[in-house]
Amino acid sequence: MKQYLKLDEWSIIEEGFDPHNHEISESVFSIGNGFMGQRANFEEQYSGSSLQGSYMAGVYYPDKTRVGWWKNGYPEYFAKVLNSTNWIGIDVDVNGTSLDLAKCTVKDFVRVLNMKEGYLSRSFTAVMEDGKELKIESVRFVSIVRHEIGSIRYSVTPLNFSGELTFTPYLDGDVKNKDSNYDEKFWLEVFKEAGQGTGALTIKTKKLDFHVTSAMFYEILKNGEKLNLDAEIIEREKFVGNRVSVQANEGEEVSLYKYVANVTSRNHGLGQLVEAAREVLNTAVQAGFNALLSEQATAWCDKWKESDIVIEGDVAAQQAIRFNIFQLNQTYSGEDDRLNIGPKGFTGEKYGGSTYWDTEAYCLPFYLSTADSSISRNLLIYRYKHLEKAKENAKKLGFTKGALYPMVTMNGEECHNEWEITFEEIHRNGAIAYAIYNYVNYTGDFAYLGQYGLEVLAEISRFWEQRVNYVPAKDQYVMLGVTGPNEYENNVNNNWYTNRIACWTMEYTLDVLNYLEQNEPERYTELVGKLNLQEEETTKWQDIINKMYYPVDTERDIFLQQDGFLDKELVQVKDLDPKHLPLNQNWSWDRILRSVYIKQADVLQGLFFLGDRYDLDTKKRNFDFYEPFTVHESSLSPCVHSILACELGYQEKAYEMYLRTSRLDLDNYNNDTEDGCHTTSMAGTWMSVVHGFGGLRVKDGVLHLNPFVPGHWTSFSFKVMFRGSRLKVNVTDKEIIVLNETDIPAAISLNGKEHTISGMGDVKVAR
Amino acid sequence: MKQYLKLDEWSIIEEGFDPHNHEISESVFSIGNGFMGQRANFEEQYSGSSLQGSYMAGVYYPDKTRVGWWKNGYPEYFAKVLNSTNWIGIDVDVNGTSLDLAKCTVKDFVRVLNMKEGYLSRSFTAVMEDGKELKIESVRFVSIVRHEIGSIRYSVTPLNFSGELTFTPYLDGDVKNKDSNYDEKFWLEVFKEAGQGTGALTIKTKKLDFHVTSAMFYEILKNGEKLNLDAEIIEREKFVGNRVSVQANEGEEVSLYKYVANVTSRNHGLGQLVEAAREVLNTAVQAGFNALLSEQATAWCDKWKESDIVIEGDVAAQQAIRFNIFQLNQTYSGEDDRLNIGPKGFTGEKYGGSTYWDTEAYCLPFYLSTADSSISRNLLIYRYKHLEKAKENAKKLGFTKGALYPMVTMNGEECHNEWEITFEEIHRNGAIAYAIYNYVNYTGDFAYLGQYGLEVLAEISRFWEQRVNYVPAKDQYVMLGVTGPNEYENNVNNNWYTNRIACWTMEYTLDVLNYLEQNEPERYTELVGKLNLQEEETTKWQDIINKMYYPVDTERDIFLQQDGFLDKELVQVKDLDPKHLPLNQNWSWDRILRSVYIKQADVLQGLFFLGDRYDLDTKKRNFDFYEPFTVHESSLSPCVHSILACELGYQEKAYEMYLRTSRLDLDNYNNDTEDGCHTTSMAGTWMSVVHGFGGLRVKDGVLHLNPFVPGHWTSFSFKVMFRGSRLKVNVTDKEIIVLNETDIPAAISLNGKEHTISGMGDVKVAR
Repeated sequence: MKQYLKLDEWSIIEEGFDPHNHEISESVFSIGNGFMGQRANFEEQYSGSSLQGSYMAGVYYPDKTRVGWWKNGYPEYFAKVLNSTNWIGIDVDVNGTSLDLAKCTVKDFVRVLNMKEGYLSRSFTAVMEDGKELKIESVRFVSIVRHEIGSIRYSVTPLNFSGELTFTPYLDGDVKNKDSNYDEKFWLEVFKEAGQGTGALTIKTKKLDFHVTSAMFYEILKNGEKLNLDAEIIEREKFVGNRVSVQANEGEEVSLYKYVANVTSRNHGLGQLVEAAREVLNTAVQAGFNALLSEQATAWCDKWKESDIVIEGDVAAQQAIRFNIFQLNQTYSGEDDRLNIGPKGFTGEKYGGSTYWDTEAYCLPFYLSTADSSISRNLLIYRYKHLEKAKENAKKLGFTKGALYPMVTMNGEECHNEWEITFEEIHRNGAIAYAIYNYVNYTGDFAYLGQYGLEVLAEISRFWEQRVNYVPAKDQYVMLGVTGPNEYENNVNNNWYTNRIACWTMEYTLDVLNYLEQNEPERYTELVGKLNLQEEETTKWQDIINKMYYPVDTERDIFLQQDGFLDKELVQVKDLDPKHLPLNQNWSWDRILRSVYIKQADVLQGLFFLGDRYDLDTKKRNFDFYEPFTVHESSLSPCVHSILACELGYQEKAYEMYLRTSRLDLDNYNNDTEDGCHTTSMAGTWMSVVHGFGGLRVKDGVLHLNPFVPGHWTSFSFKVMFRGSRLKVNVTDKEIIVLNETDIPAAISLNGKEHTISGMGDVKVAR
Repeated sequence: MKQYLKLDEWSIIEEGFDPHNHEISESVFSIGNGFMGQRANFEEQYSGSSLQGSYMAGVYYPDKTRVGWWKNGYPEYFAKVLNSTNWIGIDVDVNGTSLDLAKCTVKDFVRVLNMKEGYLSRSFTAVMEDGKELKIESVRFVSIVRHEIGSIRYSVTPLNFSGELTFTPYLDGDVKNKDSNYDEKFWLEVFKEAGQGTGALTIKTKKLDFHVTSAMFYEILKNGEKLNLDAEIIEREKFVGNRVSVQANEGEEVSLYKYVANVTSRNHGLGQLVEAAREVLNTAVQAGFNALLSEQATAWCDKWKESDIVIEGDVAAQQAIRFNIFQLNQTYSGEDDRLNIGPKGFTGEKYGGSTYWDTEAYCLPFYLSTADSSISRNLLIYRYKHLEKAKENAKKLGFTKGALYPMVTMNGEECHNEWEITFEEIHRNGAIAYAIYNYVNYTGDFAYLGQYGLEVLAEISRFWEQRVNYVPAKDQYVMLGVTGPNEYENNVNNNWYTNRIACWTMEYTLDVLNYLEQNEPERYTELVGKLNLQEEETTKWQDIINKMYYPVDTERDIFLQQDGFLDKELVQVKDLDPKHLPLNQNWSWDRILRSVYIKQADVLQGLFFLGDRYDLDTKKRNFDFYEPFTVHESSLSPCVHSILACELGYQEKAYEMYLRTSRLDLDNYNNDTEDGCHTTSMAGTWMSVVHGFGGLRVKDGVLHLNPFVPGHWTSFSFKVMFRGSRLKVNVTDKEIIVLNETDIPAAISLNGKEHTISGMGDVKVAR
């Protein structure tokens, strides 16, 4: 764990340049707008260790699967988000020597991620080998107003000399993915053109034919005056640039403003890409850097109005929660229902930038509460659009009907290739069903069920129907060979959570069928026809619901994680020699598997999702049993425990759990932030605060809150949008104030008591 | 399945050339002598599909592990037997056109593997594009008398023209392994020298520094007269050769005799390799081709005296069993205790040529009965020599003591990288312990126990001691997370076989300790000291033996393959739609895992190994339950079933099982013989005949036989060596005759009745 970042309420600040931290900072200081993302790579040449990353949302490559031993059913490829054209590049030469932070002395280095206004800045003094000193300042952002625009102001001031500064602003498509399975480059050149102050480059992927066009324009000002300079035009394979020199006297600031439009064939016709890029670029150039930056600040201000959390009395916590909210908003804007949320967002290559169950299980609540319901609806529609692929996936695995959503996907096809995960971690199907319930329950958008929801639910239920098998000797159904949410057990029988979420799906599907039959009879008939749904199917579902086998420990009166759980050596984590932790770095895989240690919430995930079906005592018995065996080696683990702990009144445990992920990336807790940030787990941290400390639940159309102030915070406040209203909830030791910031009245329950808050009204209760 | 080979009692014969069968034939017609092996690649250039393979026993390469997802504990490399210098090469040009069977018309093609005398021959007429016809005849062998010598007679006769024939005999070290993980070449050149009629080449592996030197000499005869020719010397990277032309008139036979010595740094000092090769070569050249071939025939005749099986009334069966015996004798001669038996012998690259539990479980009985006991003893010593590595392997996986032998190995280090196999298929440890019992029981060599056996047994028992865990609630020990012999279940709890063989190991270890204390007290004390064996350890072993948990089905009164077995859908193989078979080509891995279908004997493997501990009824109940669920998709499966079926009187089932592997490669039953022959399963077929139909068992120093004539055979006979005597057992429908071919009397039990057969005597009983 490295803690080198300064505490600040609104910014992430790095002071002093340590190359060992650079790749971590490249992740942490990433910028994005939901349509593109950019790691905090330097604009100028850097010969030290760096993971270059410029990502265009939805542009991926089907990288041929690499395995040791092939298993039937493995996918042909793993879809990878692509490192795309390097559009930020501005090389700098001083009297013929390249500026390279690995090759000069760096003084007064400050890197700032301004989260309030949405930009990255950097300033430092470079002392070149020959003693020349330069002051560098840069500001960079990708616009959340204009999704295809990124812009940079890059200023150089000679501090102790006068001489020639040479700038090479460029677009470079000759890039690679570090995680390429066969060390291939994925891009081909399609078009390039460089002119005075301009350049355009189109590259396309070797497979799938994704095209990305980048167009750039730059201008150079000295002491605020625009210069007319004659540039050398550079064109080479997948590269366009200008090389331009400026005479600068000591103390004169030379600023290069670079504007870039990045457009893709996902949003433009192949023949129109260059034109589209230039058009978008021109509008931005006409607006000018300062106006773009100003509209960026305004737009971020609006985002914060919807989603900010204010924590008083703990700057580290304040910074962390804003960082998490900021990264989530940078990753997914919800405007494009073909996009989703990769585990690392746009901050790295790992996990391929693809979609996991993280989205439904952890991210959805954040977007439900902090954005218009259309945003979370789009997350659901993403899966609806993949339904046919999920049905194909089930067929491929030998099922005659139904849908199995993939473990990892970009376009709906399975990408993962570990049998114990790909084929067996099927509880993901339950999370996708649960998200429909969660969305409808939160938003009240019952129309979704007839429009999209039922089809997904029915096909998932059909999958479960075949995935269980009936055991005559028991007169019960069992589910063999699964991996539950706890990936530290593989290929187990009767994982309680999976059995439970499977039956829950079938129950909910039957409920929804009943709802539609009553409320939308025509659509009901239409859907039954479309699905060719037979009565014997729903009868079977009911039979499975009635006769499902659930492993339990009658002595402790708890649900059992799986059939064989109690045969394990029941030694709690606290009694382990700490040198064994984290287990995933110290134990061989078989030892982990046969151990009692739990990677992330499993039975407890079920008690969290289906919280309204279990009483507090049940939750308490299970929590008390399982948490002490849990090593929380998934970043998605602590949040669920934190929320349950809050509900059970274990405030200290809740806060301990919250702390485990709140600053996961800022403090590089898992020693892997250089690969990218843990974006999806950030949503879990948000949940810890709002669902945990805030006690947020939605029941029967009413928003329930049951908050307390954790740790040494003096107070905290958060925003939630609920059925049209936006509420600001402020919690101190003494009182809770809920302020309705909209005109739409809201029905809420505060500490168990119902209130209606009129438009712009508030309610205040003592704690 | 392809059946293109002719039936013959002593030879494998291919008539007519079909390029689609060529790679299969390259495997089937392989020749070897336990020290080197050579696929039946053509001597002359061949541009069609071919898997080149020249293997030197014990010369391997640590090829960097390739996996999709790394798991803690995986090995760094997979050791691969290397495709080494191509020493058979003789290119042929006719008036400037290369002879290439892919580019000419081939008539009267016959390829013969003469098993009786141990050589490969080939003859055909090639019609070149320009109409020229050539008769080609070749004979090739690797000497089982001179382990480093291979020789070829290659004759060309122009049939319808007179002209120039050009020969290029060569040694080519610029070869690769098809299964290289990263498409690397593994060899570097060390030395080369070509002269008139000679050549020498030394290459070394890029890692581990194995050196292989090949030296060649050739001469050319026309119409039986040696020619003095001036050859063009060819030297290039890793290649030496001669190019030499001969004028031949229509009908004149030109024969090239090529002699090659292949020596390795395993047997010679690095500085002496070239000299050693030349010396070995010279002796062979002086003897001459015909003498070498003649001594080869004599030596094979001796081999057959020890191991032949004669089947009357079924040529296909006769050919098959001789093929199996021939390949086993070609693969392992037992003279070098650093060598072992790869699953494909020297007939292909697959499985890396490494050692599996196949050796102990399937091959040992063959060598016990058909060779001097020193041969099987060497197989045991191989593992003794790897004991330290096996202890390191256990440590790597988190055990504080004991030994876990690797799943796959070349030098004692684990090479495999699938967690469910590498870390969990630990029953292999039991097979290695069992082999010690099997060897001592068969040979009566009790001295082995004190010399080598106990150390291995004790360290394996120590492993089991830690691998089980005690469950207080049950007051029993369990073993979690294993893969049994049935690899169609992974990561199961309490695999009956593994639990049983673990306890058996501990029982046997305690027995051996007791034996040594009684019979070799000094050595006993020495060994207890060397092992630092504590009383608490043996006490613990006894406690585990007493309190081991074994899953059972009390209703059916059978042992359960594993805890969850009866929750599976119990549909027998015969009730499966045959289009699903083989499952491993049609079902996704998870579907196989949760199915009831068994790849190979599992509970039944235990009842086979520990046959004297279970009564016939118990065997019958378990056989009747498990066999119908068994798909026998391992070539090691049918033999065990066949032997048990014989014991149970299920003669038809026994014969059906025998047929499944007896001609596995000759008929390319599994459509994979092109990768190499299933060498280790050939030993299983031998067991089916001798232990199955012959009913061979050894109890208390007595050889038991209980034979019957299976199928439509009229009679069969087999040889067994037993404690110094060699017995020929001849079985007809009417009688059994056992002939003692040695001077040493033998105590045998025939159909339950004891006899002593005096030296050179016989015993005859009616059936």
